[in-house]
Amino acid sequence: MQAAIAEAKQGLQEGGIPIGSVLVQQGKIIGRGHNQRVQQGNPILHAEIDCLSNAGRIGSYADTVLYSTLMPCYLCAGAVVQFGIKKVIAGESQTFAGARAFMESHGVEVIDLNLEVCQQMMADFITQHPRLWFEDIGKL
Amino acid sequence: MQAAIAEAKQGLQEGGIPIGSVLVQQGKIIGRGHNQRVQQGNPILHAEIDCLSNAGRIGSYADTVLYSTLMPCYLCAGAVVQFGIKKVIAGESQTFAGARAFMESHGVEVIDLNLEVCQQMMADFITQHPRLWFEDIGKL
Repeated sequence: MQAAIAEAKQGLQEGGIPIGSVLVQQGKIIGRGHNQRVQQGNPILHAEIDCLSNAGRIGSYADTVLYSTLMPCYLCAGAVVQFGIKKVIAGESQTFAGARAFMESHGVEVIDLNLEVCQQMMADFITQHPRLWFEDIGKL
Repeated sequence: MQAAIAEAKQGLQEGGIPIGSVLVQQGKIIGRGHNQRVQQGNPILHAEIDCLSNAGRIGSYADTVLYSTLMPCYLCAGAVVQFGIKKVIAGESQTFAGARAFMESHGVEVIDLNLEVCQQMMADFITQHPRLWFEDIGKL
């Protein structure tokens, strides 16, 4: 999760939405990413999608774990379910409840670490840039 | 749908998986895309995701319709639900049932045109490249 938080902080430094993600396989990080809506002007590059994009074509996802600083939304949860990722670890879900029940209904193990550092990053960002946040979750 | 089929055919000519998609707003195509797994080595660029990526940051999706030559999978259906796209028109769902029920459960109108041309493209491709297809839907 520390690597995902570092990704989120990098995104914030770039002027982006501070959400980070890493993909782990057999204890090793094989992909890293952060939200790129602002930086690349790309609405589909949520942190988890950027991470999965950067990991490349790995074949089976059966032995991978996806970390994200925020509970995945339906887009990212859809990727988890379709690709067959079995475990998701989220930094927090207070800012955004996300699609936890949807993932669990498809047999994905979801752990919420409820981390203050992740909550605070998002709370600060949303206070300063509410419109960007609502754009990112499709609520404009 | 003809524009989405043209995208699928372009993907096939590039050596890729023949699935195409367009996003329509007020009768005008504002985004086009096709599956880029092979061409860009990118697992998240399903046709619909490539299309939404190419459409860019459009703000609200409330008045958009997403066309795809194949019924959207959970990844792409997750994007539809999260972004608030209200209508999806699929070329076919015989090759792949996709996540129709999931979209409908979130209030999305889903129409299946059941087109022979779309079915045949996928049937021919899967016969020739079964492994690529199963990789694309996370079933390796």
